[in-house]
Amino acid sequence: MAEIPDLTSQEVAHFMDLALEEARKAEAIGEVPIGAVLVKDGQVIARGSNRREIDQEASSHAELLAINEANQTLKTWRLENTALFVTLEPCLMCAGAIINARIPLVYYGAKDAKAGAVSSLYHVFDDDRLNHQVKTYVGIKADESKSLLKNFFQNIRAQQKLRKQLRKVENLSENQGENS
Amino acid sequence: MAEIPDLTSQEVAHFMDLALEEARKAEAIGEVPIGAVLVKDGQVIARGSNRREIDQEASSHAELLAINEANQTLKTWRLENTALFVTLEPCLMCAGAIINARIPLVYYGAKDAKAGAVSSLYHVFDDDRLNHQVKTYVGIKADESKSLLKNFFQNIRAQQKLRKQLRKVENLSENQGENS
Repeated sequence: MAEIPDLTSQEVAHFMDLALEEARKAEAIGEVPIGAVLVKDGQVIARGSNRREIDQEASSHAELLAINEANQTLKTWRLENTALFVTLEPCLMCAGAIINARIPLVYYGAKDAKAGAVSSLYHVFDDDRLNHQVKTYVGIKADESKSLLKNFFQNIRAQQKLRKQLRKVENLSENQGENS
Repeated sequence: MAEIPDLTSQEVAHFMDLALEEARKAEAIGEVPIGAVLVKDGQVIARGSNRREIDQEASSHAELLAINEANQTLKTWRLENTALFVTLEPCLMCAGAIINARIPLVYYGAKDAKAGAVSSLYHVFDDDRLNHQVKTYVGIKADESKSLLKNFFQNIRAQQKLRKQLRKVENLSENQGENS
């Protein structure tokens, strides 16, 4: 069995706060606010915030970016004895990457009913047919994560509504111009 | 429904040959021989061969590298109207990345009983709870892919056996040196 980091509840809260900080960085550049940090020996060794739109890369999810950074920093694909903190339940791709990187411990915030592969749609971290299992804690500062996501999507919808109204007014004045 | 490329059986065989060529490139640098190509409008737009050990990156699988390259070339994370050819059944990470990139069509060679997420352990491409499904053809030139993998692992085991024998002989001559 791989060694699993032992963290106090204070440390867990602290590292999830740092993951939420990464989520806010995503939000600040117009990305869906999701963030992650990877921890080893009580230190943050890598960070990731969702950059799918700005990078135009399907794999630029917070978790995958943090895993890539940690692989580069530690010069190994094996992230044994690390813990990943992420604000939203990982999707299939990220859950698969966590397994491939042999991360033994994951703390996540809100559940993702539409794409979550850890406790919503799938339970891949408990699958003993795979060559690695992941100890998981769910719901860490979930309300903060949910609230970030809710505000982000409300804002997007408000923008869409205003743009639609603007187009109507623009069309109206164009038509008036043509008729005058 | 996303547009799905329409390929002739000759094209399918040709593109899988190119994926097998990528697998041989992996083998040539000591990596597990797995290769992939991504095709759009009858042209290869990206290639990938497994580079996990040489990159020391958990995500350096053939499929993910091809997807990243295609995202960069086309400047979009949406790989609509493309087809992915890969010599081995995708793992959870790569299958998830294929879904995230909205690839509509996948042809793969050999099944992966230990980690395959498409028809062995999971069937994620048919999951209608997810926001994207993938049309899949299994077993394209599977024997060539299996044979590459089999030879690779036989070679690894042969090397391990010879190294063990060498160590024994080295220890023997060291001990003889000490006793003389």
